[in-house]
Amino acid sequence: MNDEDRPALPRVGLVGLGAMGLGMARSLRTAHYDVGVHDRRSEAAAAFTREGGTAFDSAGELAATVDVLVGVVVNAAQVEAVLFGPHGAADRLRPGAVFVMCSTVDPVWSAELEKRLADKGVLFLDAPISGGAARAANGELTMMTSGSAAAYALADPVLEAMSSTVYRLGDHAGLGSKVKIVNQLLAGVHIAAAAEAMALGIKAGVPAEALYEVITHSAGNSWMFENRMAHVLAGDYTPLSAVDIFVKDLGLVLDSARPEKFPLPLASTAHQMFLQASASGLGGEDDSAVIKIFPGVDLPEQAGG
Amino acid sequence: MNDEDRPALPRVGLVGLGAMGLGMARSLRTAHYDVGVHDRRSEAAAAFTREGGTAFDSAGELAATVDVLVGVVVNAAQVEAVLFGPHGAADRLRPGAVFVMCSTVDPVWSAELEKRLADKGVLFLDAPISGGAARAANGELTMMTSGSAAAYALADPVLEAMSSTVYRLGDHAGLGSKVKIVNQLLAGVHIAAAAEAMALGIKAGVPAEALYEVITHSAGNSWMFENRMAHVLAGDYTPLSAVDIFVKDLGLVLDSARPEKFPLPLASTAHQMFLQASASGLGGEDDSAVIKIFPGVDLPEQAGG
Repeated sequence: MNDEDRPALPRVGLVGLGAMGLGMARSLRTAHYDVGVHDRRSEAAAAFTREGGTAFDSAGELAATVDVLVGVVVNAAQVEAVLFGPHGAADRLRPGAVFVMCSTVDPVWSAELEKRLADKGVLFLDAPISGGAARAANGELTMMTSGSAAAYALADPVLEAMSSTVYRLGDHAGLGSKVKIVNQLLAGVHIAAAAEAMALGIKAGVPAEALYEVITHSAGNSWMFENRMAHVLAGDYTPLSAVDIFVKDLGLVLDSARPEKFPLPLASTAHQMFLQASASGLGGEDDSAVIKIFPGVDLPEQAGG
Repeated sequence: MNDEDRPALPRVGLVGLGAMGLGMARSLRTAHYDVGVHDRRSEAAAAFTREGGTAFDSAGELAATVDVLVGVVVNAAQVEAVLFGPHGAADRLRPGAVFVMCSTVDPVWSAELEKRLADKGVLFLDAPISGGAARAANGELTMMTSGSAAAYALADPVLEAMSSTVYRLGDHAGLGSKVKIVNQLLAGVHIAAAAEAMALGIKAGVPAEALYEVITHSAGNSWMFENRMAHVLAGDYTPLSAVDIFVKDLGLVLDSARPEKFPLPLASTAHQMFLQASASGLGGEDDSAVIKIFPGVDLPEQAGG
């Protein structure tokens, strides 16, 4: 269609320019959005002005200028700070604006947040993301969303600009976060299982490359095995997503199930493995470094490293 | 090429007409092999004669007629019976013939078996299989093999007729079985993790179909999640591979690591879950029935069931 036929884009802001948020902000720029940004590291927001963004000193100042505010921070505590902390966004968003929450949080907390914002006339989308930093930069995230029709009506073009797949799971907050919790359970267990299996095979004298080649073409494969064991083969533990992220996320998985008294034997075991890795000083390394908790395994080393 | 230019096919026999063995025997027929078969259930061998096979009353009688004998039985004890039991094959195979062992066994035991057969002048291939009954019937198995060049020279056309992928992992027995052990560790943990995750999500009120759709397109996916949770969605626990197979295979994984004093926290936890399922009377159901160990979960029911 012609430019003049195109409906006006909603005014959009994004808080949290980490590995995921920066990629998402770039995807919005690619889709021709003016993008206001805030990060508590002011240098991160300033750097994004060189890519055509507009930096704001606080979440509140940014919130006052937008229809859709996207929060891409680490956890519920940071979402609280963005919305309700000093210079927070909740009181500055216009009535009818929507807050899109992309963090991995307890589903019950997310459902409560929807009510707290509704009290201020602000709409809410429960919208955790999956896919990693590379996909975020290419607008190819998966979003696991739920919320009211009114929230979707305003936020939909923004979601589409950031994602290749938007799952719409229901008409109230919490369902998106529940599915994200299930995904993180599997992702965490699969990384730890990949590490356990590769460690066993290498210890038994199977060449690591042959093991990777066979498993990635067999019934034992997982998305995480294929992705993370490539880091082990390369001997490269530069953190794309760190061990401590799964210390947090599997902790959240366990916390979310405990009030229901629901047992999670594998998530619990995998969590202990990530805790052991973190306690061994590996918390800041790539999550594939959980393989280093297995002693006596001759892991591949980085070329020239 | 013309029929008369075609090199003579090795004479081939197959012992064990279970779900996998029957499919493999059919693949050999499709590839124009005369196939001699034996099964301790004589009716299974008799039935295969209607598909052009030749039935033998014992492994030994069959062994005396072939160049390549393929063993597709459940475990090491059954391989022992096929080779060294009454009317066994080991003393009837001609010198220079090859025994292709497709069972999942302890790698150390497999390496010893290679030596025991070498004492009789018989060649050996360590050749565990992966892929399931449907792939077996279509000649699309994955084989994880290792053994001597002489064994491959004779058995290669037979392997190719049964498989879409033959991994050649080294020049002595044991490597194939080691890789298979690693694959079974992952497969077993992934089935149990899929069950744990689906149970959590359904219990939390997420529709099972939506959960399956999102996870199979996200970083939490695994080959086993995609395959086995389809059975849960259908409410169909007809055993394609039974709970008790993973009671056995994860037991083998743990047994193989214990002499090395190597810890396997996730394999151990998953094994306990399959044991709990089996102890609950689910041992003969499809392995996806491990999801039934989680109480209070409203699982999908079979249509019309």
